[in-house]
Amino acid sequence: MFSLGELADRLDLAFSGKGTRSITGLASLQTAGPGDISFFTERKYLADLAVTRAGAVILAQEYVPEAPTDCLISEHPYLTFARVSRLFDRTPAPASGVHPTAVVSPGAQVHESASIAANVVVEAGASVGAGACLGAGLYLGRDSRIGAGCLIHPQVVIYHDVYIGCDCTIHSQSVIGADGFGFAPSGDGWEKIVQSGGVRIGDRVEIGACTSVDRGTLEHTVIDDGVIIDNQVQIAHNCRIGKNTAIAGCTGLAGSTIIGANCTLAGGVGVVGHVEICDNVHITGMTMVTRSITRPGSYSSGTPMAATGEWKRSAVRFSQLDSLQRRLSNLEKQR
Amino acid sequence: MFSLGELADRLDLAFSGKGTRSITGLASLQTAGPGDISFFTERKYLADLAVTRAGAVILAQEYVPEAPTDCLISEHPYLTFARVSRLFDRTPAPASGVHPTAVVSPGAQVHESASIAANVVVEAGASVGAGACLGAGLYLGRDSRIGAGCLIHPQVVIYHDVYIGCDCTIHSQSVIGADGFGFAPSGDGWEKIVQSGGVRIGDRVEIGACTSVDRGTLEHTVIDDGVIIDNQVQIAHNCRIGKNTAIAGCTGLAGSTIIGANCTLAGGVGVVGHVEICDNVHITGMTMVTRSITRPGSYSSGTPMAATGEWKRSAVRFSQLDSLQRRLSNLEKQR
Amino acid sequence: MFSLGELADRLDLAFSGKGTRSITGLASLQTAGPGDISFFTERKYLADLAVTRAGAVILAQEYVPEAPTDCLISEHPYLTFARVSRLFDRTPAPASGVHPTAVVSPGAQVHESASIAANVVVEAGASVGAGACLGAGLYLGRDSRIGAGCLIHPQVVIYHDVYIGCDCTIHSQSVIGADGFGFAPSGDGWEKIVQSGGVRIGDRVEIGACTSVDRGTLEHTVIDDGVIIDNQVQIAHNCRIGKNTAIAGCTGLAGSTIIGANCTLAGGVGVVGHVEICDNVHITGMTMVTRSITRPGSYSSGTPMAATGEWKRSAVRFSQLDSLQRRLSNLEKQR
Repeated sequence: MFSLGELADRLDLAFSGKGTRSITGLASLQTAGPGDISFFTERKYLADLAVTRAGAVILAQEYVPEAPTDCLISEHPYLTFARVSRLFDRTPAPASGVHPTAVVSPGAQVHESASIAANVVVEAGASVGAGACLGAGLYLGRDSRIGAGCLIHPQVVIYHDVYIGCDCTIHSQSVIGADGFGFAPSGDGWEKIVQSGGVRIGDRVEIGACTSVDRGTLEHTVIDDGVIIDNQVQIAHNCRIGKNTAIAGCTGLAGSTIIGANCTLAGGVGVVGHVEICDNVHITGMTMVTRSITRPGSYSSGTPMAATGEWKRSAVRFSQLDSLQRRLSNLEKQR
Repeated sequence: MFSLGELADRLDLAFSGKGTRSITGLASLQTAGPGDISFFTERKYLADLAVTRAGAVILAQEYVPEAPTDCLISEHPYLTFARVSRLFDRTPAPASGVHPTAVVSPGAQVHESASIAANVVVEAGASVGAGACLGAGLYLGRDSRIGAGCLIHPQVVIYHDVYIGCDCTIHSQSVIGADGFGFAPSGDGWEKIVQSGGVRIGDRVEIGACTSVDRGTLEHTVIDDGVIIDNQVQIAHNCRIGKNTAIAGCTGLAGSTIIGANCTLAGGVGVVGHVEICDNVHITGMTMVTRSITRPGSYSSGTPMAATGEWKRSAVRFSQLDSLQRRLSNLEKQR
Repeated sequence: MFSLGELADRLDLAFSGKGTRSITGLASLQTAGPGDISFFTERKYLADLAVTRAGAVILAQEYVPEAPTDCLISEHPYLTFARVSRLFDRTPAPASGVHPTAVVSPGAQVHESASIAANVVVEAGASVGAGACLGAGLYLGRDSRIGAGCLIHPQVVIYHDVYIGCDCTIHSQSVIGADGFGFAPSGDGWEKIVQSGGVRIGDRVEIGACTSVDRGTLEHTVIDDGVIIDNQVQIAHNCRIGKNTAIAGCTGLAGSTIIGANCTLAGGVGVVGHVEICDNVHITGMTMVTRSITRPGSYSSGTPMAATGEWKRSAVRFSQLDSLQRRLSNLEKQR
């Protein structure tokens, strides 16, 4: 619990109204009650702001007159909302220490302040940094490292030779360091290429649930500081992802893809292998990226949704586009 | 083992032929033998029906004359087939009781009739209802609840504050309640928004393998009674899915998507965030849903498959569609 | 460590240069040092070849004059690279024997040379072949079989009645044998169809991480010898996949899909249910396969990526294609 004045102090912001107002939680404009602080980011929610029952609202100076409540004044209300959310974090903390059912190799180095939950397995040569928390059933392979302050949720699998920086979060069922999909065709089927590279992940990286990041073939797969990756994402071998890039759910990167810094890939995007995407690129949802991108900007592919009957007609015509174009050229010539 | 007459009795159906015929299993028309019951649902399989070696076939009254076998007569043969399949269920039953390797917090409530397999971890405040079965290695987080009669397969991870109703099934490696992908941009990278909502799942919900359902940001992510979800599906934070809706494999819903009741989403569909789909909507496979849908019906997007050479020609023309349209308009004006 | 001459001997290849040169590892042309062997497969890398610091390079006879290094001469350099990679495999070997925390049913048969890691659970009736390695936390269901020489990574879940042949590899978090998505509609929601078939996987199959292969409804789901499957792939119930077929990441096959031998499906492909794809078919990335394919060749769908502004114009025109076509026909008639 904080008073409005305390919140303003901690976040170095101004407020309007009653500084002693006690704030006990966060809620949306529509559901907030008098003990809650809410946030207002877009004009289209002005009607919600007008009738909110929140005790206080985070908003920009220009909207203070519109608010029927006390205000926490911020030029970046959404960012302030994020920071306030951390002050009210009630996520249960993991138990400290090493659970008796954990199987930690005597050849591993676990910092005394780390938390190792039930049934965790840590192989020889692995290390776990100060304050890191390893969730139940997690597997940490040989010679892999988890940096200080990491929160790795239950049942994540980390293969050998994977380095994870400090203050990273990885959600359950994700796999870091499985073999890349590397095979050479022979006359008699596929011959496996041993994937001898590892994975190198920077600091403050977040990886969602059920996501896979493959190890490299000869060099490492690399994820830079501050990258955020959602659920059900596939990062193939030898990919390199630049600083602070965000990748939304169900996106897949094929092998040796290089993505710059500060990019945002929406959900369901597919990127073919061996292409390079420069910094500051946005890719819209379900786009098929089949070539390198050398200029910042927004890129897309796909066709718009329609009622199935209408869509079928358009789809048939799509197959006839080349002949349609030739017919048009003929008409033009005849003029 | 049942006699044909017993099956008819239990399902409240009529039969033709020999009521004492013993039925020991189910099989398709093509592979069934004299001890099997099969089913016939579509005219296109009439040739298979004519030569089947099944002992009996589930079919509609009008097809009895076509069957060379005894018949179990149903207006809904496929539904009857489903019900018969449950009578012949030979799936191995989990062992009862709490396995000695399970780590159950003394602060958890586990019904005495529940089955808790090896290496399960149940945190404080969690509860497990009567007859529920928790597969090996499952993780049940703090204050989460699993209702009576649930079957949760090995290694599912359920975070804290997740409520699952009665008679639900969840398959292996699925994750319920991981953090939603919520981050605010700051000048210096992404600032995480604590995901303080939970997940609320109704009764008789089935969730496939490797599927992720994220917890809500402020309120709960909600899945209503009778929803069925396939493998490799991503349900983002704050989604709400209506009663009896079906979602096929590899589909992804972005955050705050609302889907009505009795919808069917085919495989590989992507739904952008903050849209609303009304009841009784069908979305065909791999459709990109970029706006709300307010009228029941079937919706699609995409282009038809073709030989790669032909497709390339159409794809090039797609990029020229706007100029093609202008050329056509010019010609029209010149007339 | 091998000498160049020893490598040539083992692989039955010729070499040029110094046979006693000692090779201690593999690396790319750009990063290799004097102790490394590298490989050259495509003319476009000639500039890299010219300046490589590798001790030796695997390449075709015709390129020997271009190489500033010793050479291992192969008609199939990429295949030779794969074989050399196995000679230099330094992946940590699993510990032998059964770990004391493993829970192995007395009714299971585990070969004395198999390796069973910590927290593995093996149910009654299951069998594990000679030299097979089961990673930490793996679950092996009732009556399932793992053949000799298999390497199953940590936390894979294998349900009951799943047979896996010899020398297969399965990566972490994959699920083999979960229920197919089989439900019959009733007036009152969905009625589950018991999935009583199993899964049959041949020899030398590799399955990536976070992939799901569902059990069959009445018959088995079948994956033939030599098939390779990447991460995040969904293989639905009753699919049959032919010998040596390769399926890249994020691809989904709906139920009862039959795929021939020697096919290659790129990433993000979706295949609708109940279709059949003949041998020797290639499907490009993100293609939507909505009908059977009866002729070998390459198939595609989708639209090309463009800057979002341009793409929006094309996408709008796509919805007007049918009227555009009618306008064109009118003009043609008027001539």
